[in-house]
Amino acid sequence: MINKLVDNMKKKNAPIVIGLDPMLRFIPDHIKDKAYRELGETLEGAAEAIWQFNKEIVDNTWDLIPAVKPQIAMYEQFGIEGMKAYKRTVDYCREKGLAVIGDIKRGDIGSTSEAYAVGHLGRVQVGNRTYAGFDEDFATVNPYFGTDGVKPFIDVCREEKKGLFILVKTSNPSSGEFQDRLVDGRPLYEIVGEKVAEWGETHMGKDYSYVGAVVGATYPEMGKVLRRLMPKACILVPGYGAQGGKGADLVHFFHEDGQGAIVNSSRGIIAAYQQEAYSAYGPAHFGEAARAAVEDMKKDITQALESR
Amino acid sequence: MINKLVDNMKKKNAPIVIGLDPMLRFIPDHIKDKAYRELGETLEGAAEAIWQFNKEIVDNTWDLIPAVKPQIAMYEQFGIEGMKAYKRTVDYCREKGLAVIGDIKRGDIGSTSEAYAVGHLGRVQVGNRTYAGFDEDFATVNPYFGTDGVKPFIDVCREEKKGLFILVKTSNPSSGEFQDRLVDGRPLYEIVGEKVAEWGETHMGKDYSYVGAVVGATYPEMGKVLRRLMPKACILVPGYGAQGGKGADLVHFFHEDGQGAIVNSSRGIIAAYQQEAYSAYGPAHFGEAARAAVEDMKKDITQALESR
Repeated sequence: MINKLVDNMKKKNAPIVIGLDPMLRFIPDHIKDKAYRELGETLEGAAEAIWQFNKEIVDNTWDLIPAVKPQIAMYEQFGIEGMKAYKRTVDYCREKGLAVIGDIKRGDIGSTSEAYAVGHLGRVQVGNRTYAGFDEDFATVNPYFGTDGVKPFIDVCREEKKGLFILVKTSNPSSGEFQDRLVDGRPLYEIVGEKVAEWGETHMGKDYSYVGAVVGATYPEMGKVLRRLMPKACILVPGYGAQGGKGADLVHFFHEDGQGAIVNSSRGIIAAYQQEAYSAYGPAHFGEAARAAVEDMKKDITQALESR
Repeated sequence: MINKLVDNMKKKNAPIVIGLDPMLRFIPDHIKDKAYRELGETLEGAAEAIWQFNKEIVDNTWDLIPAVKPQIAMYEQFGIEGMKAYKRTVDYCREKGLAVIGDIKRGDIGSTSEAYAVGHLGRVQVGNRTYAGFDEDFATVNPYFGTDGVKPFIDVCREEKKGLFILVKTSNPSSGEFQDRLVDGRPLYEIVGEKVAEWGETHMGKDYSYVGAVVGATYPEMGKVLRRLMPKACILVPGYGAQGGKGADLVHFFHEDGQGAIVNSSRGIIAAYQQEAYSAYGPAHFGEAARAAVEDMKKDITQALESR
């Protein structure tokens, strides 16, 4: 799967992933109104609106991008019905040939991580049969538990040829509170980054490891160091756009050959029609606005990489 | 809710929480066979077996204990059907008057943590209505993102009078890999513990804060230090029993008055019938075996506290 992702990034010339984080306030009224008319202002109605919204975003952008990253929290907040919309979104995107990065940020002690890994990336045994619960291609994982909390994810990935992105340095303002604390004179995120590189050696693809890392676009200097520390890790870079990361900041996350990173934008794409720059599309054409925003993001990153 | 939990621990004289982590191998064949006969060897069948198993455990133990802690991963591995069994378990336990600690270990950047908080502890807005998605009383939270990843959980808890247990020092063997690293000469878990105490001040109950901590029974010496650093935090202590923690190790997590900690046991209780000591009950009476195991655990902890 990591080979396919890397190939698709090259083929589409787009190291871009769309964050499918459909907060209700991003969804145009005509979609919500229709869903609520059919199913009421209920969890089912919200889930239907989310699904219709996602579908239109994907239908308008899938040929430009290699991957999507649904943020499971945005679905989980609507309970079981939301989880169904998540699953439907995952399945639809995979049908479209997109790599699906489940942004689940799970992580626990070994036996529990194993259950998460099985549920999201593997197959669970029921009697003599096995079933894939959510069936994403990649999952994000929280490293706070250390190796034995991460290893079950890697084991399942090895079996399924799937991959991970481990949180190393997150994009949020207070990420430094613990992640930047100095351990023997070096920030904790470097220690975690070294572990990611070490874990990655146990499950290598062609050019990159199946074990990638998450490093926020909002911390480009740290990205530079981490790029060196984890040469074989594909870096998933959130924080572009709405959170403040710019194209020029992103070059540090890529290798000299312009590979090795995939940049996420969520509301910058899916809610493009709500921004000044794309307002001419109007809510009725939010899908086309998203497409235009993807093309602009592609340009922004390509130019930044060319002029580095 | 923290007041109710603390009161119930006193009233039932049991600082004990049962971890409802129903791996299929813990569930007696007669339960599984019946569920598979009705629904096939399917995710629905597995979910039904889990629910029937949980119900019998709860029916046999609810009067002895103040709380349960379902580990969501054990349900999530069965996809949507598993999540339904989780929700059903949460609802049933709340009906029985038990405090439900959702062991979800979520945590993300601010806006995403808010969605998790709303989905598990609060109410989500859909049009003019609001709905509780999963509706646990407490949730466990991963602190790796720092304050702005935790604050949305606290904000929702303040509104709903619900509570949190933040991971400080986890019970697994490799927890020290990052958590024990020395920052200015002090282990990271102490730095996290101090933050938990600080966060806790913003949402205080009567004697304890709504913001508690998770500290593994497997690290009693660290528990002693953390008990001092977070005087107002109720400490949720996993790792008793199957993971190796013993009654005598637990005293350090409690204040001198015998309050301030709640000890989790999962397979030690729910799969008691599979252990030598309770094998006389047999699989048919697994609920009674669980009850006996709770009573023994109560005795073990009470004796340890009395002879400290």
